[in-house]
Amino acid sequence: MDMNNLGIVKRNIVRADKAAVEKLSRFGVATIHEAMGRVGLMKTSIRPIYPSAKVCGTAVTILLHPGDNWMMHVAAEQLQPGDVAVAACTADNEDGFFGDLLATSFRARGALGLIIDGGVRDVADLTAMNFPVFSKAISAKGTIKATLGSVNIPIVCAGAAVNPGDVVIGDVDGVVVVPAAVAMMVADAAEKREANEGEKRQKLAAGVLGLDMYNMRGPLEKAGLRYID
Amino acid sequence: MDMNNLGIVKRNIVRADKAAVEKLSRFGVATIHEAMGRVGLMKTSIRPIYPSAKVCGTAVTILLHPGDNWMMHVAAEQLQPGDVAVAACTADNEDGFFGDLLATSFRARGALGLIIDGGVRDVADLTAMNFPVFSKAISAKGTIKATLGSVNIPIVCAGAAVNPGDVVIGDVDGVVVVPAAVAMMVADAAEKREANEGEKRQKLAAGVLGLDMYNMRGPLEKAGLRYID
Amino acid sequence: MDMNNLGIVKRNIVRADKAAVEKLSRFGVATIHEAMGRVGLMKTSIRPIYPSAKVCGTAVTILLHPGDNWMMHVAAEQLQPGDVAVAACTADNEDGFFGDLLATSFRARGALGLIIDGGVRDVADLTAMNFPVFSKAISAKGTIKATLGSVNIPIVCAGAAVNPGDVVIGDVDGVVVVPAAVAMMVADAAEKREANEGEKRQKLAAGVLGLDMYNMRGPLEKAGLRYID
Amino acid sequence: MDMNNLGIVKRNIVRADKAAVEKLSRFGVATIHEAMGRVGLMKTSIRPIYPSAKVCGTAVTILLHPGDNWMMHVAAEQLQPGDVAVAACTADNEDGFFGDLLATSFRARGALGLIIDGGVRDVADLTAMNFPVFSKAISAKGTIKATLGSVNIPIVCAGAAVNPGDVVIGDVDGVVVVPAAVAMMVADAAEKREANEGEKRQKLAAGVLGLDMYNMRGPLEKAGLRYID
Amino acid sequence: MDMNNLGIVKRNIVRADKAAVEKLSRFGVATIHEAMGRVGLMKTSIRPIYPSAKVCGTAVTILLHPGDNWMMHVAAEQLQPGDVAVAACTADNEDGFFGDLLATSFRARGALGLIIDGGVRDVADLTAMNFPVFSKAISAKGTIKATLGSVNIPIVCAGAAVNPGDVVIGDVDGVVVVPAAVAMMVADAAEKREANEGEKRQKLAAGVLGLDMYNMRGPLEKAGLRYID
Amino acid sequence: MDMNNLGIVKRNIVRADKAAVEKLSRFGVATIHEAMGRVGLMKTSIRPIYPSAKVCGTAVTILLHPGDNWMMHVAAEQLQPGDVAVAACTADNEDGFFGDLLATSFRARGALGLIIDGGVRDVADLTAMNFPVFSKAISAKGTIKATLGSVNIPIVCAGAAVNPGDVVIGDVDGVVVVPAAVAMMVADAAEKREANEGEKRQKLAAGVLGLDMYNMRGPLEKAGLRYID
Repeated sequence: MDMNNLGIVKRNIVRADKAAVEKLSRFGVATIHEAMGRVGLMKTSIRPIYPSAKVCGTAVTILLHPGDNWMMHVAAEQLQPGDVAVAACTADNEDGFFGDLLATSFRARGALGLIIDGGVRDVADLTAMNFPVFSKAISAKGTIKATLGSVNIPIVCAGAAVNPGDVVIGDVDGVVVVPAAVAMMVADAAEKREANEGEKRQKLAAGVLGLDMYNMRGPLEKAGLRYID
Repeated sequence: MDMNNLGIVKRNIVRADKAAVEKLSRFGVATIHEAMGRVGLMKTSIRPIYPSAKVCGTAVTILLHPGDNWMMHVAAEQLQPGDVAVAACTADNEDGFFGDLLATSFRARGALGLIIDGGVRDVADLTAMNFPVFSKAISAKGTIKATLGSVNIPIVCAGAAVNPGDVVIGDVDGVVVVPAAVAMMVADAAEKREANEGEKRQKLAAGVLGLDMYNMRGPLEKAGLRYID
Repeated sequence: MDMNNLGIVKRNIVRADKAAVEKLSRFGVATIHEAMGRVGLMKTSIRPIYPSAKVCGTAVTILLHPGDNWMMHVAAEQLQPGDVAVAACTADNEDGFFGDLLATSFRARGALGLIIDGGVRDVADLTAMNFPVFSKAISAKGTIKATLGSVNIPIVCAGAAVNPGDVVIGDVDGVVVVPAAVAMMVADAAEKREANEGEKRQKLAAGVLGLDMYNMRGPLEKAGLRYID
Repeated sequence: MDMNNLGIVKRNIVRADKAAVEKLSRFGVATIHEAMGRVGLMKTSIRPIYPSAKVCGTAVTILLHPGDNWMMHVAAEQLQPGDVAVAACTADNEDGFFGDLLATSFRARGALGLIIDGGVRDVADLTAMNFPVFSKAISAKGTIKATLGSVNIPIVCAGAAVNPGDVVIGDVDGVVVVPAAVAMMVADAAEKREANEGEKRQKLAAGVLGLDMYNMRGPLEKAGLRYID
Repeated sequence: MDMNNLGIVKRNIVRADKAAVEKLSRFGVATIHEAMGRVGLMKTSIRPIYPSAKVCGTAVTILLHPGDNWMMHVAAEQLQPGDVAVAACTADNEDGFFGDLLATSFRARGALGLIIDGGVRDVADLTAMNFPVFSKAISAKGTIKATLGSVNIPIVCAGAAVNPGDVVIGDVDGVVVVPAAVAMMVADAAEKREANEGEKRQKLAAGVLGLDMYNMRGPLEKAGLRYID
Repeated sequence: MDMNNLGIVKRNIVRADKAAVEKLSRFGVATIHEAMGRVGLMKTSIRPIYPSAKVCGTAVTILLHPGDNWMMHVAAEQLQPGDVAVAACTADNEDGFFGDLLATSFRARGALGLIIDGGVRDVADLTAMNFPVFSKAISAKGTIKATLGSVNIPIVCAGAAVNPGDVVIGDVDGVVVVPAAVAMMVADAAEKREANEGEKRQKLAAGVLGLDMYNMRGPLEKAGLRYID
């Protein structure tokens, strides 16, 4: 048995059900996060490199070392159509681990985007390519290729646990991770939630107060809320 | 007398004079901040969720607890046309206290926007609605409804003291708070300042140096500035 | 000999060769940074105030004190066509040291933009003017004119050493400083690098893996990479 | 009426009742904060310069400008025995506004300590003097004396509103502000709370669980808590 | 199957082998982290509340919500002698989730300390009790008891994945997590490493250079290092 | 001519005059910084690993890459009695580049301490050794030895330019860099300043106000200060 997972590339991973991924792609990150019970969200430091960036796909995970993007190239070979690369680093580091060349390679493999708890560069090119990237920083600083990390091991990325094959969804509200095993259940819950929201939105737009729509007046009074003039 | 203001909703607040608010709405935050003597500015961590977001209105203040947006719904009922919701939190927290449903409700009440020392979500929808929000973070994370805060008490929001009825103005340069009692005086001062700026801009564009336009050469020499070759 | 350089304005500085500056202007910051051997990059906290901001020119350096922009006006007189103002501060400070009036003055002098380890304001106007600014913050807070700093002395700006006359290049990936003495050498290296990138991009787009294109399989195996199923 | 309070020194302020201050000095910051209803706490960025620093006294407020400590000297004259200087700044700034000379002067006036949303220096001397200081930073950087701030106006310090005469209490857990008008009420509540804590501590030390002592099992079950094996 | 783990308390967890825990307790965090292959380290933001704090034990994991410490009391019941409580939060939050009363209760259960990606209070008391706590912040701010989190589910704490029963070791260098399954293997590797270090230390103290002791001169020359005068 | 300085070790550097270093060692960082005209200070993020750490010596500079401490070993050979190692990194990185083994080696060479814009580990050992270290972070994370940086080139460390041979002084107030060429001049100015401070301290302790001692009342009145009751 291994003490750790460094220097390992797992080739066969179980990806989340395609239908579930497709269904999840219809919903926003906030809706999915609610549907899942408010877990699985990455830190707010992870932001899209352009406001309209959106992605939904199955995770190929990457563990990097600071200042070293060697594993990005190793990961490229493991990417399949519909995958999203999800990269963590063994230490806080904002170097530019990824740019337009790697994006070109990833896209050629069918990958849909990148989530990285680190920096990226060539942002003008990535935006022109409409290649969605969610990162902690933008940095022109390049990286070396000297140390082994791993591909397709369980990682922690920006505070969220990610297993290879999980569904990752990113939009302007952030990035959420849905475990493969519950992907369809979450998608169903998101659908149900979204349906409810439409009705609520109409009522609120018509001037109905949330206080009444959610029956909050009683609980608020019970909690001791006082109205004064 | 109360030891604190938690669990209170003040219904009748004195809003700043409408004419003063209208006049302030013609000027940018930087101009108003100068006109007021360089006080009242919120921290630079408060940013618009889309670059063109602008707002100017009278404050309905909200004090939240971390991870809890119950008071947002209580505040909705207190909002009147021309108001801007201004929300602080009893601890640093980036949760998504506000989204498109609350924005729909706030707008239905006539509210013009939101300033929050916390996080918001549904940013794509809020942007599409052109509902101006100035926040510390964007976060998909939802909140609970369990603890009483207050509405329309004096608060500290992002380093600035805000009283209900004060004028709050936000644009891409930040957010400034103008006490209701001095709103017209500040608006007048802003107008005067703006007038001066037009003339200055023309001179500078024509190549006149600030050194000469502001008569700085004497003071600089007196302060000991040395030119070397 | 002076103990320090405060209160000094150096009028005659040696600017980098114009042909080198022009050639460098054709390349992005990431490419130039690589071409120079991965040194000279400013911290990632320095960001363009609008995404398409780009600048390449010779540095006129400015050392400011917190909350004081007097030296900006002194610097204006030293700016020549093709220059970029590069401003550092003796302490971390996000005040709005620069706005549309100074931008008007700088442009009238032929300056191409501003890099500042501090804050700026009037961002809507600066964007409308298409005046590229790279800053640490956006702040409406104005500054006073009371203390002498210096102009055209060696400074440290956002972690990078800048000498007057050096070439500074900024785009969405960040800001890099190229010493005047090596400007053409770096430009040549950037050109060579860019040429190589085109070919690489085509191969990667065609599905060739970086693993093969860069002959990484051998070194990875030697380093101990293990593939598992 | 004034538009703002800059350049003002208020000489006669109403200090909190001495008996209330004395009583509050017996309790820790956490206890007082609870007793007051969990408001009035400064941000966690404010830390004692040495772990055993403790202070409790009436606030003389100071509004500083970045890089300028002129008002510290103005404030010294307003300090009376039992006072604590509380200094805010119009912008985020970590300069060393205060050192052993000012501490010597403040102590000669009878002041008990300093709370500052900024930096201080001469920390070894201040520690040797056992002069309690709570600050955002330690910085050797000195400041100038060029711009008017104010003394004894309402300020916002590290996120907390402070009025001159309020009680400020600092210890290793942070700094809390108790409005003068409720000082005795809060002191009484703190005393009551402290009494309860002693009994609770004994029970918990004896192995009684909070679950039982606070009767939480019912509410937890009602909220849906599930025990699994 | 559950979509998420909220509202769950797992009573029977498999704790790491006692002998392995005891052996790990002999080594420092840096040594263990090296022995494990440089994975499992929490972020550097987690610091001991007093410099000499040290802890080594088996993890009882806790997932909290911002501003809510209800699960701390639920967790107390699950603590056994030799355990260390490890608490994460669903959002960044520095509230004081833990103080001397809970420490008294935890200690009565045999727990050895607390690791928390949040804030704590009563630091003077905790220090006097010599109860080791590693936290992100110190904050006097209390918390409510309103929302269900979970106990003994897999969590991410300060960037590290922690499973109930894992060994957590904390000292002044930080906090590291050793999976239960590899605890003895890591302890053995740490022991071996420590042995080697003693010999190295003697050589270095005698003036032998690392360049020679580690045979680095050849590789450095091969990498292109140039010595100039 | 070289485009950059990577992969270079300069063996013969001009160290600051020993008498000047000795004289500077008598003064604190705040005094020296004032004496030099308030330049040369490192960022406040650089802190001593134990409060009483103090160092004053001549700089041997080191440029590191993130996650790589190879150059530390190269630098050891260049250290001479009275030197202080000063290490910068090409990107923000908090890894533990330095521990007790390197400290043992550095001390064997006669080095007096380390200043590093990065992380260190083995802090308990370093403290027991009384080896003064000033760093940005404490981290147990080890580093690799794969990439060439440089030794004894000009660097920027925590915002300050450092040339090999400069005097670096660190104490609890921070770290300041004195260029070798002005070391004695700064030491003389510091001595003069210190002398003045003694007299001032006595006056202030006797109750004389800074307002009077520094003749500030006139300038304050002229600036418009108003006293109100």
